[in-house]
Amino acid sequence: MHATVPDVSISLSRLDRLRAAAAAAGAGAVIVTPGSDLRYLIGVAGSSFERLTALVVPSDPGSAMAFVSPALEYAGLRHLPLAELGVEVRTWVDGEDPYALALEGIAVGGTVAVSDQTPVLHAFRLRDQGSRDHVLAGPILRELRMRKDPAELEELRLVGAAIDRVHAQVGEWLAPGRTESDRVIERGDLVVVDIGGPLPSGYNSDSTRTYAAGLAPIGAVADAYAALEQAQQAAVDAVRPGVTCESIDEAARSVLRDAGLGDYFIHRTGHGIGLDVHEEPYIVAGNDLLLEAGMTFSIEPGVYVPGTWGARIEDIVAVTADGVEPLNTRPHGLAVV
Amino acid sequence: MHATVPDVSISLSRLDRLRAAAAAAGAGAVIVTPGSDLRYLIGVAGSSFERLTALVVPSDPGSAMAFVSPALEYAGLRHLPLAELGVEVRTWVDGEDPYALALEGIAVGGTVAVSDQTPVLHAFRLRDQGSRDHVLAGPILRELRMRKDPAELEELRLVGAAIDRVHAQVGEWLAPGRTESDRVIERGDLVVVDIGGPLPSGYNSDSTRTYAAGLAPIGAVADAYAALEQAQQAAVDAVRPGVTCESIDEAARSVLRDAGLGDYFIHRTGHGIGLDVHEEPYIVAGNDLLLEAGMTFSIEPGVYVPGTWGARIEDIVAVTADGVEPLNTRPHGLAVV
Repeated sequence: MHATVPDVSISLSRLDRLRAAAAAAGAGAVIVTPGSDLRYLIGVAGSSFERLTALVVPSDPGSAMAFVSPALEYAGLRHLPLAELGVEVRTWVDGEDPYALALEGIAVGGTVAVSDQTPVLHAFRLRDQGSRDHVLAGPILRELRMRKDPAELEELRLVGAAIDRVHAQVGEWLAPGRTESDRVIERGDLVVVDIGGPLPSGYNSDSTRTYAAGLAPIGAVADAYAALEQAQQAAVDAVRPGVTCESIDEAARSVLRDAGLGDYFIHRTGHGIGLDVHEEPYIVAGNDLLLEAGMTFSIEPGVYVPGTWGARIEDIVAVTADGVEPLNTRPHGLAVV
Repeated sequence: MHATVPDVSISLSRLDRLRAAAAAAGAGAVIVTPGSDLRYLIGVAGSSFERLTALVVPSDPGSAMAFVSPALEYAGLRHLPLAELGVEVRTWVDGEDPYALALEGIAVGGTVAVSDQTPVLHAFRLRDQGSRDHVLAGPILRELRMRKDPAELEELRLVGAAIDRVHAQVGEWLAPGRTESDRVIERGDLVVVDIGGPLPSGYNSDSTRTYAAGLAPIGAVADAYAALEQAQQAAVDAVRPGVTCESIDEAARSVLRDAGLGDYFIHRTGHGIGLDVHEEPYIVAGNDLLLEAGMTFSIEPGVYVPGTWGARIEDIVAVTADGVEPLNTRPHGLAVV
């Protein structure tokens, strides 16, 4: 099964930018094992078992990139335009040492950045090949991945619209008497429906709405839900290039704090989204990263009163040149279903 | 959704044996993150995102075990009998440092073993907490996991029988004219069908048969297939406690070598199977591990003539007290479908 392979020109541009970002970070090479980082660069996520598959990208443009793959698995990857990308293929068979193969030509004494999802099974064996420093590649790769290009934004719009259509149908299957996990939904319950997932493009959706089963809440619960709506909207309204991630978190949090609900909002306001459901940038206190056009993330404040009720509203938004574009557009009010 | 949680007595015994194995290996603690190792110990695999979940098992029985979990995710894990297992729960919320929490009470200067599937995202952050040596926990955990107890063997028999039933139906959907990947099956093609997967118990099947589409091969191909059958049977017949893994590999390989087909058998003879599809012990040249009763693995020699044809026969077998029990029982001959 072939995943969507990006155009060669897109892969080439991403690989070039990765080399530059690696050089800027002082890494001699980036080693990317199966997962979303690999998919971002060459179009296939690969599969991670006990046999090493890795794309090795030296920061020096004079050194060849290499794709290390078990020979049998490479048979299914021959459609990849690796030669056009300037990537040398190095296959190996059982009994050979793929770690030495991956590090061939990478200077001893330097720093190697390893993609965040790499199992330590592989990372520690790379480490044990010799005296190099090993660091996370996440801070390097996020420089590329967290700024979506127009084609990526279009995929995120499509998958966002798809999950909105699912939310539009929630009323048909959510009703008092239905079983949610190991609990029967009772009249008056608030039900938090957090759903998402990828389209074949690999880009993900993630959207939450809270539904009232059979009966709208009144009094304190209704007031708290109104504050949650305001908190979510305040955070969306604060999004624009040049402000910090933590300022978006604070925009939501301060509304809930002012409503006396601060202690019931126990998680960050949001997470980046793209080929991973959770990725950079994280919208959380302490993150002083500045937003830029093309960044996409969730805004999902929640209120959870232990043992009693909870609610959350979550939309994905994109940072535009001068503000914000919500990628989910379902109404925020409590729908009685 | 609750996974099957093993009896408390089984978990307790596994945790005790893990402590002892860790102590014997010189590790001060084993850190187990989401995946099959965690499922083996406490019944849930957990989910591995950017937030750390980890079971911390000190080798010293006087030190408490700990389960580190994001507070929100722990809400879904309250059914786990952690208190009965003597495991202290340490939840954390966004903004707190889960890595310091995991290593609380673990001596600086000692060795920490990290489960093989742990993403480096977490492993490098644990490493960066201070001056401890970090090693793979695989060699410690395999001492437990590769010897299946009677209940595990029964689960492997059940899932083996289930995949045999699927192979029994392959003829109904495999026929000339059908599309296999991006290729139409032609009359006379040999089709290698390698299928498997878990039942809800988590234990996996993996079985391969080769089918002839519409027409049985004759001549050299038929002769080579006969040699493959003999090679597979020779390896099965060689299985018993006390022989090395590599001797099983050699039993299959020598038959193919003698038939002039050695260069066409380009992978190891097999892999262990259990909660993972591929796990220890590996049936490969260079592995002098001695087989013991309760070990379960595949025996799957293959012959692949590049660009022409290929065939493989794969059964899972269990080592018994005095020999071998095949867990797949479909006929090995080429079925014409």
